[in-house]
Amino acid sequence: MARRSRPRSVRQTLSGAKSMQSDRRALLGGLTGMAALAPFLTLESAAAAVAAQQDPAAASAEAHERLMQVPGLRMHGDEQVAMLLYPGFTALDLVGPHYFFACMMGAKVHLVTNQASLAPVASDLGLAIAPTTTLADCPADLTLLFCPGGTNGTIAAASDPATLAFLADRAVRAQCVTSVCTGSVILGAAGLLKGRRATSHWVAREQLSRFGATPVDERVVRDGKIITGAGVSAGLDLGLAVVEILRGRPYAAALMLQAEYSPAPPFPGGTLANTDPAVGGPMSDMFTAFRAEVDKLKPL
Amino acid sequence: MARRSRPRSVRQTLSGAKSMQSDRRALLGGLTGMAALAPFLTLESAAAAVAAQQDPAAASAEAHERLMQVPGLRMHGDEQVAMLLYPGFTALDLVGPHYFFACMMGAKVHLVTNQASLAPVASDLGLAIAPTTTLADCPADLTLLFCPGGTNGTIAAASDPATLAFLADRAVRAQCVTSVCTGSVILGAAGLLKGRRATSHWVAREQLSRFGATPVDERVVRDGKIITGAGVSAGLDLGLAVVEILRGRPYAAALMLQAEYSPAPPFPGGTLANTDPAVGGPMSDMFTAFRAEVDKLKPL
Repeated sequence: MARRSRPRSVRQTLSGAKSMQSDRRALLGGLTGMAALAPFLTLESAAAAVAAQQDPAAASAEAHERLMQVPGLRMHGDEQVAMLLYPGFTALDLVGPHYFFACMMGAKVHLVTNQASLAPVASDLGLAIAPTTTLADCPADLTLLFCPGGTNGTIAAASDPATLAFLADRAVRAQCVTSVCTGSVILGAAGLLKGRRATSHWVAREQLSRFGATPVDERVVRDGKIITGAGVSAGLDLGLAVVEILRGRPYAAALMLQAEYSPAPPFPGGTLANTDPAVGGPMSDMFTAFRAEVDKLKPL
Repeated sequence: MARRSRPRSVRQTLSGAKSMQSDRRALLGGLTGMAALAPFLTLESAAAAVAAQQDPAAASAEAHERLMQVPGLRMHGDEQVAMLLYPGFTALDLVGPHYFFACMMGAKVHLVTNQASLAPVASDLGLAIAPTTTLADCPADLTLLFCPGGTNGTIAAASDPATLAFLADRAVRAQCVTSVCTGSVILGAAGLLKGRRATSHWVAREQLSRFGATPVDERVVRDGKIITGAGVSAGLDLGLAVVEILRGRPYAAALMLQAEYSPAPPFPGGTLANTDPAVGGPMSDMFTAFRAEVDKLKPL
């Protein structure tokens, strides 16, 4: 059987490769009614599993086929995903959702720099990520557009006409327009939040009203095609929420398990409400200058 | 006053710059008993705050000084942090803890490639990160050593004598030796887990016994200087736990608030126990080939 002929890495089986046997999937589509309970759908697949015990690569491939048969699990796709890079972006804002977007099998992720060259783009904490394309060369028709946040670099990006024009143009045709952290400030500056419910990092959430948005204190906020996440770490929650929209709950659940996303912070915190005010008060006030810069931005 | 002379970005105030006024902090050290309740410690700082309302940059700087006065908050440090990069590593494994490590003011983070050149190192999902140094050029004496996980690339790194020799050497003198996901497999191959309690991505956790470790089903496991995290997204929990060790709870709480780390997955999941068995079963079996490769590794 073809599935034994090509050992694949487990990571590859969930991303990148397009070698899935969709004919076989269609063939088995009528048999999946009990898949939520049955570990093996047919005597054939049970026999394959037994044989696979002798061959780890075959066992992995067989399991992959079995996963594809789960009702509602849309493993195949051809999404065009663009994620913006600009100097001073926050790397974790981008890499959290990137994990989930790039795991979507068949999806093509473009890392789009707003700089002239394809040199690695330095984040606010020094870590530099290599882009794959420029604003000009990014595909015109996207499934998913994403914008990370930051501080000084975010103000610069939200003041750059070419960056704003790119976002405004691609957003028209995109199925989902998304951001994490203060990335929503850039979406706002591009005129994309007018009349929308949206969120941002807690330090800048209320500033979104400057762009005609209604600020919402939630981890992930969806208003039609506009889906915004709260600060930095909310990218994981947003990433999963977007995968659920594009690929359905079972596929998102598979990626959640692969990411072992069952968070357990070592102590309470993460919001102003549950952080010692002696820490939270100064932390909030430290962003006074940043908020003042956001307030100066003029949306398209 | 000096704090008004130099507007700083809020991100910079928590990372990078070493311009803090430690003399001033020492001076105020005796006055901080009520800091957990008092928004302003002295009439002087209250006056500065009022004046700062006229000047956003001054307000940010004043808040930063106020934060420094919180009892137990160790804002200053000079940690040497090394984070390993190898082809096929999982980017989120690294970028989650990197956020917290790199935010530690005064800490120096080295992104160490195990390749010959400083070309960006491609992760398993295609995102490439620029290293800052090589194995040979990485400082000999480190505070903190970190190893990310992956799948095929992880097996290759855990089979590379130069990579293992680097880890074994640096670990001797490091204060904390850490990993996320299957990064613990590499630590195990380097002989660093013998007799230790440790964790890994759920797919490979039990395999750690091959390296003389006791596998533990917890999100973050500390056994002396060895601190290991579970799969992929556990890097955020591990990062915070390590910051708490190095800088104390109040500083970790400040970074947790800056990261807005108050996770809220859009639906339950992330472990085999709370994932539909029709999804979790095949997901686990898909890693059969990877587990077989781990079992072939021979520790130093």
